[in-house]
Amino acid sequence: MSTSTFGRFFTVTNFGESHGPAIGCVIDGCPPGLALDNSDIQPDLDRRKPGTSRHVTQRRESDHVEILSGVFEGHTTGTPIALLIRNEDQRSQDYADLLDSFRPGHADYTYWRKYGVRDPRGGGRSSARLTAPMVAAGAVARKWLAQHYGTVVRGHLQQLGDIAIAFEDWGQVEHNPFFAPNAGVVPALEEYMDALRKSGDSCGARLRVCAGPVPVGLGAPLAGKLDADIAGAMMAINAVKGVEIGSGFASVTQRGSVHGDEMTPQGFLSNHAGGILGGISTGQDIEVSIALKPTSSIRLPRRTVNRAGAAVGVATLGRHDPCVGIRATPIAEAMLALVLMDHALLHRAQNADVVHAVAPVPGQAP
Amino acid sequence: MSTSTFGRFFTVTNFGESHGPAIGCVIDGCPPGLALDNSDIQPDLDRRKPGTSRHVTQRRESDHVEILSGVFEGHTTGTPIALLIRNEDQRSQDYADLLDSFRPGHADYTYWRKYGVRDPRGGGRSSARLTAPMVAAGAVARKWLAQHYGTVVRGHLQQLGDIAIAFEDWGQVEHNPFFAPNAGVVPALEEYMDALRKSGDSCGARLRVCAGPVPVGLGAPLAGKLDADIAGAMMAINAVKGVEIGSGFASVTQRGSVHGDEMTPQGFLSNHAGGILGGISTGQDIEVSIALKPTSSIRLPRRTVNRAGAAVGVATLGRHDPCVGIRATPIAEAMLALVLMDHALLHRAQNADVVHAVAPVPGQAP
Amino acid sequence: MSTSTFGRFFTVTNFGESHGPAIGCVIDGCPPGLALDNSDIQPDLDRRKPGTSRHVTQRRESDHVEILSGVFEGHTTGTPIALLIRNEDQRSQDYADLLDSFRPGHADYTYWRKYGVRDPRGGGRSSARLTAPMVAAGAVARKWLAQHYGTVVRGHLQQLGDIAIAFEDWGQVEHNPFFAPNAGVVPALEEYMDALRKSGDSCGARLRVCAGPVPVGLGAPLAGKLDADIAGAMMAINAVKGVEIGSGFASVTQRGSVHGDEMTPQGFLSNHAGGILGGISTGQDIEVSIALKPTSSIRLPRRTVNRAGAAVGVATLGRHDPCVGIRATPIAEAMLALVLMDHALLHRAQNADVVHAVAPVPGQAP
Amino acid sequence: MSTSTFGRFFTVTNFGESHGPAIGCVIDGCPPGLALDNSDIQPDLDRRKPGTSRHVTQRRESDHVEILSGVFEGHTTGTPIALLIRNEDQRSQDYADLLDSFRPGHADYTYWRKYGVRDPRGGGRSSARLTAPMVAAGAVARKWLAQHYGTVVRGHLQQLGDIAIAFEDWGQVEHNPFFAPNAGVVPALEEYMDALRKSGDSCGARLRVCAGPVPVGLGAPLAGKLDADIAGAMMAINAVKGVEIGSGFASVTQRGSVHGDEMTPQGFLSNHAGGILGGISTGQDIEVSIALKPTSSIRLPRRTVNRAGAAVGVATLGRHDPCVGIRATPIAEAMLALVLMDHALLHRAQNADVVHAVAPVPGQAP
Repeated sequence: MSTSTFGRFFTVTNFGESHGPAIGCVIDGCPPGLALDNSDIQPDLDRRKPGTSRHVTQRRESDHVEILSGVFEGHTTGTPIALLIRNEDQRSQDYADLLDSFRPGHADYTYWRKYGVRDPRGGGRSSARLTAPMVAAGAVARKWLAQHYGTVVRGHLQQLGDIAIAFEDWGQVEHNPFFAPNAGVVPALEEYMDALRKSGDSCGARLRVCAGPVPVGLGAPLAGKLDADIAGAMMAINAVKGVEIGSGFASVTQRGSVHGDEMTPQGFLSNHAGGILGGISTGQDIEVSIALKPTSSIRLPRRTVNRAGAAVGVATLGRHDPCVGIRATPIAEAMLALVLMDHALLHRAQNADVVHAVAPVPGQAP
Repeated sequence: MSTSTFGRFFTVTNFGESHGPAIGCVIDGCPPGLALDNSDIQPDLDRRKPGTSRHVTQRRESDHVEILSGVFEGHTTGTPIALLIRNEDQRSQDYADLLDSFRPGHADYTYWRKYGVRDPRGGGRSSARLTAPMVAAGAVARKWLAQHYGTVVRGHLQQLGDIAIAFEDWGQVEHNPFFAPNAGVVPALEEYMDALRKSGDSCGARLRVCAGPVPVGLGAPLAGKLDADIAGAMMAINAVKGVEIGSGFASVTQRGSVHGDEMTPQGFLSNHAGGILGGISTGQDIEVSIALKPTSSIRLPRRTVNRAGAAVGVATLGRHDPCVGIRATPIAEAMLALVLMDHALLHRAQNADVVHAVAPVPGQAP
Repeated sequence: MSTSTFGRFFTVTNFGESHGPAIGCVIDGCPPGLALDNSDIQPDLDRRKPGTSRHVTQRRESDHVEILSGVFEGHTTGTPIALLIRNEDQRSQDYADLLDSFRPGHADYTYWRKYGVRDPRGGGRSSARLTAPMVAAGAVARKWLAQHYGTVVRGHLQQLGDIAIAFEDWGQVEHNPFFAPNAGVVPALEEYMDALRKSGDSCGARLRVCAGPVPVGLGAPLAGKLDADIAGAMMAINAVKGVEIGSGFASVTQRGSVHGDEMTPQGFLSNHAGGILGGISTGQDIEVSIALKPTSSIRLPRRTVNRAGAAVGVATLGRHDPCVGIRATPIAEAMLALVLMDHALLHRAQNADVVHAVAPVPGQAP
Repeated sequence: MSTSTFGRFFTVTNFGESHGPAIGCVIDGCPPGLALDNSDIQPDLDRRKPGTSRHVTQRRESDHVEILSGVFEGHTTGTPIALLIRNEDQRSQDYADLLDSFRPGHADYTYWRKYGVRDPRGGGRSSARLTAPMVAAGAVARKWLAQHYGTVVRGHLQQLGDIAIAFEDWGQVEHNPFFAPNAGVVPALEEYMDALRKSGDSCGARLRVCAGPVPVGLGAPLAGKLDADIAGAMMAINAVKGVEIGSGFASVTQRGSVHGDEMTPQGFLSNHAGGILGGISTGQDIEVSIALKPTSSIRLPRRTVNRAGAAVGVATLGRHDPCVGIRATPIAEAMLALVLMDHALLHRAQNADVVHAVAPVPGQAP
C-alpha cells in the first residue's frame, strides 16, 4: 500500500528526487524468461529525456539505466527488477533561493505543509523527472505485452496550446520533437514554441495514447476497473488535469443510439467506449486522451508568499520545459502499458481456466 | 488487493449483483467513537434511489440499509462496518431473453469473455445498482469529514445532453430531480427528458463535485496522488468516460501565467488547480468534473451478436434511466468523500508529528 | 490493506462481532465456474460450531450460511462471494457486568485502550466466533483446490493439555469430538476434560494440519513466502501462540545432514522442510503445527483492574470452551486452504507460461 | 501487493540477488523530519555482516549502504528512502557446477520449478544475504521507535544446536560473536562450533527477540493482528521454521489460571501473552522466539537429482555459515522493529483521536 507503488500484482515502486543521487524503481511480479537488457529500456528513456531539442529543458542527463537485479544471463528470473538512473546535471544552485518561497502552480507549498520539510532542488520528489523510472518500467511491460499479444502502445500530441493537430500518420510521430502525427504542422509548432519561449510564458497540451491489439477480458468490476486504473495512472503523471476514455467528454452530448458500439459477426462497428465496457477490455483498441496544464515554472514574475507568510515575487529562471506536454508522450504510453500488463497477469490469476462453449466473437473492429 | 475494494486504509469492499439476494459493503479502518446509525446513511441512499421521479428508472427499491457490525450502542467501534441492502424489486423475467445476446454499450460481452459465465439479471455485477453501497459508505466518510474539518462534499448537474446548466445556487440542487443548481432551467430539463424518453433514446451528462474546506496536505507523491485516486474513483462509477480536476481540459489552451494560482498572505487568488498541487491538497476546494455516457439500454433497435457469434437485433424494454447522469450526483459525492477520508487517515499515519516553524499560510482562497 | 482482509488476490474480508446482528465475509478473486452452494460450506461450519459435545461451549448457533452474491445458477461468477451468518444465541446479559473490568488473558484491555470503546458482548470482535466466516471461506478454497490439484487439507489434535496423542489414523479424526487421530485415546481425553471442567480451569492444545498433494511452485521469495503467509494466517487464529513448519523447533537440535531433505529420482526422502523451501512449495505435503493457549475465560477467580484503574476480581461464568483447541482443527484447515488458494492464483498470474526443458522431478515423496 | 514488499503502510520493498550487482530496498511511509544518515544504519549492518568471526561465513562484504533518496540535509523528507548495497565478493565460480543440480534443503529445486530459470550464484534471491536490506530498513524503524516511545528492540541466542544458553545479562550480547547473553557459555559455544565446522555438518539455533517499552494499542483484529504480522515477518527470515509469541508452545500444557496474565493497578503480574492480547499490544514487552534450521550448505556428501531428473551427489564447498542462527539476531530484531513501526503508524491513522474517560491502567509490568 506504499503510495509510491503503482500496480496490484505487476508493481512498480518508484524512488528518488530530481537532484538527489539517483532515481529508479523496483519492478515486481514480472514473469520469468523474458529476454531483457538495457537496450530494451534505453530507447524509451531516450525518447523522454531532456535536452533533445530547443523546445524542451536544456538539462543534460544521459538517463543511463542500470539493471541491478532480477535478470540473469539476459533473461528475467521472476524476482524484482531494480532499475537505477544516476542524476548527473544537478545545478542545485539554480534553486537555492527558492527554498523559502512557494512557486505558484508547484507543489512547494503542499509538500511543505504536508511534510514540514521539502527538498527544493529541482522540485525534489515532485519533479517530472520521476517519470523516467516509470518509462523504464513501462519498457519492460511493453516488451512482454508485444510478445504475448502483439500489443503496441503508442501516443501522439493532439493539441499544443492553441494549435490542434490533425492525426495523419503514426509514421510521423517519431520524426519530430513534438510527437506530432502530422509532418505538415511541425513548422507551426516550432514557431509557436519559439514565440512562447521568448514570451517567458508556457502552454498546455493534449495527448492521445492507444494500445492494441489488447486481449478481451482485462479489468474487473468496480475498484479494479481497467479504465479506473488507467485514469488513476494518467492523473498520476505530472501536470495532467484531465483524462478521457474513448469519447470522453464528447459522450455528454452523444445519444445512446450513437455512443453504444454495435457489434456484428465481423466485430464492433465503432469504438466510442475506447475499448472498455464495464471496466473490462472489449478487445478493441484502448483509447485514452489526457490534458496537461501549462508548465508552472515561467520567467514571468508572479505573486506568492514565503514560509513566513509574507508576500513575495517569484520568477523561475532555471531550465524548464515551456510545455511539459511535449515530452509526455512516452510517459503516457508507459503508464498505459503498465496498467495493461498488471491486468493481464491479474486476469490469468483468476480466469486461466475459462473456456467458452462457442467461438468468441472477434473483439477487434474491422 | 481485492479488485472489489476501494481505498488504502479506509477501505470499502463492495459485493452483490443487481438482482441477487442483496448488495452491500464492508467498511474497514473507520475511526472509533463516531456516532452512527441508519439515519446517517439512509438520506444519501434515498437521494440516489430509483423511482423518485418520472425521469429515472421506475424500479422500486426501498434501499433500506442494515448495519450488521462495527457499531455498538450507537457509535463506531473501529471494527469493520458491514452494510446490507436487500434487493426487492427483481423483475428478472425482463432480462431472461438477454442471456444469449450482448447489448451494445453494456458489459455483457466483456463479462462473458472474461468469466465464461455471467449473471444477466439486471446487468448483474455491472449494474449501476452497485453504486448504492458506495453511497452508503460515503455517508460514513462524509459525517466524519464534516465533524473533523467541517468538510462539505456536494455536487450538481452541469450539463444534460445538449443543455448546459449555469451554476446559480447550491440551495437549488436538492429541490429538483436533476440536482440542477438553477431553478430556472428545470422546466427545460423536464421537457428535454420527456422528449428523450419518448424517442426511445438516451443522453449523456456532465457533473461537478466539490469538497471544502479540505485540510492542506492530503495526498502523496506519485502513486498515491490525491487527484490520481480521485480520478480512479470517479472513473469507477458506471458510465463515466472522463474526469477533470480543476481547469481540466481547459488547461490545454491556458497560459502558465494564467493557470498557476498565485498566492497572497490572504490565500490563493484562483483555483485552476482544483485544490491539488503535486498530488497533495492545497486547502482550497477540491474541484472535479466528470462526463457520463448516455445510457446503453435504449428502446431503439440495435445490431449485435449472440453467444454463437451470429448477428441479432436487440432493443431494451426493461426499466432504465434515460440519462444515468441524473442520479449520479450523490454517487460522485460519495466517491469523493471516500477518497478524502482515506487520505485524511493516511496523512496522519505518516505526518501526525509535523510542526511548522512559522505559521502556515491560509490555504483557503478568500 | 484492510486489517480485516486476509490474502493477496484471493481475499477474504471478515466482519462482525460475537453478539452483533451477524458475522460474515466477502471472498473476492474466486475463479468463475466453480459449482457452489450451501452444502459445500455448511459441513465445515458444522464441524466448527459450538454445542456439539459436552467438551465445548454450550452456546447454540445453527451457523446457517447464506450466500448473498457471486453465485449464479449454482456456479461462481468470478465476482465477490458474500457469506452471511446471523447470530442467534446472544445471551448478552452474561457479559453486562464485564464492560467495566478487563478479563485476564482477554483482549478487553487492549481493545479499550486502542479504540476507547469496545463491544463487550461475548468478546465482541475478539471472539473466536469470528473464525466461522474463515471456515466458510476456507470451504470454497478447499473445493477449488481439490478439483484442481486433488489437494486434501486436514488436521488433527496432537496434544490436549498434558496428553500427547499419537497419530494412528486419519480415519478416526471425524469420529470423536476432539479431532483425535486415535480412537484409543478418546476415553482419556474425555476424562481429562471432565476433570478440567469441574476444576473451573482450562488447558492448551497442539494441532497439526497438513495439505497434499500441493503443486510445486506456490509461494514467492521474501515477503510472499508461503510459510510466512501460513505463519501469519495461523497466528491470526484466536489463542494461537506458536507456529511450526515441518520440523519446527525440533530443527534447533537437528544436524544439517539430517534436516536437509535429500532427493532421488523417485522423490524426496524425508520432509523436514514441511513441504516448503525458500518460501516455495516443494510438492511434498505442507506440514504445520500450532500451539493454542488455554482458554482465558475460566470460573476460577482472578485479579484484574477496572476502567478506573482499581483492583477488582473477576470470574467468568458464561458458556465457554474449556479448551479452545478442541474446535480449532477446522479453523486451522481453513486458514491453510485459504493461503494455498491465494498462492495458487498468484503463481499462475506470474508463471503461467513457464515451461521446463526437461521433465520435472517428482515433487512428491514416495 | 508485491511479494517483495513487507508492511502495510511503512513498507519495505526488497530487491537483489546474492551475487548480482547490488541488493537494497525502498522504504516508504517513513515520517518526515527524522535525522538520518549512514551512521544510523551501518552499525546494524555491521552486526549482521559476514566474515566477522571464524564461526560464520568468510565471505568479505563491506556492506556499505548508500542512501539514494528520501533524505535531505540529514533528515527524512517523508518520501521513499532507497538504500543500496553493492555486492563485492562474488566468487560465482564456486557455484558454477551447481546450476544443474538441486542442493538438499535449498531453494534450488523450488525456484527452478516455479520460474523455469534461476540465478544459481550464491543462492541468488534465496540467499540470506537478502536480509541485509531488511536490517538496514530496520535501523530506520528502530531509530524512530526509540525517539517516539523509547522502544528498544533487542535479541539474543537462546540455544545453539544442543547447547541451551541461560539468559544472564543483556550487556553480554554484543561482546561475543554469538549474541549470547552469557559470557560463561561462550567458550563452550566456540568449541561446539569448531567441532561442527570440522565435521562438515551444521546445526540449528533458537533466538529470542524482545521489544519494549511498546505503546498499548498496536495491532488490529483478525488479519492485522500484531502477532500475526510478527509471525509472518519472522517466518520470512531464511531458515526460520518456528515462531512463538510469549509462552508459545509451552502454552499447550499451561492451565488458564497460570497463562492468563493478571493485572493490578501497578500493571500486569506476568507476561505469558508476550505483550499481545487479541492481536493488540498490551504495553508489556513483546516477546518472540524463533527456531532456525541447520544450514543446508554442508561439506558432507548428499544425494539429490539434477535438472534431467537423474540421481547425483552434491557437497557444498563454498563459504557458508555452519549455523545461520549465529548471525540472525540483528535480522530478527530488524523484522520486529519493522512490524512495530508499521503498526505504530497504522494505529494513529485510525485512532489518533481516541481519548479515555479515565486514566489508562499502566500497561507496563512493574
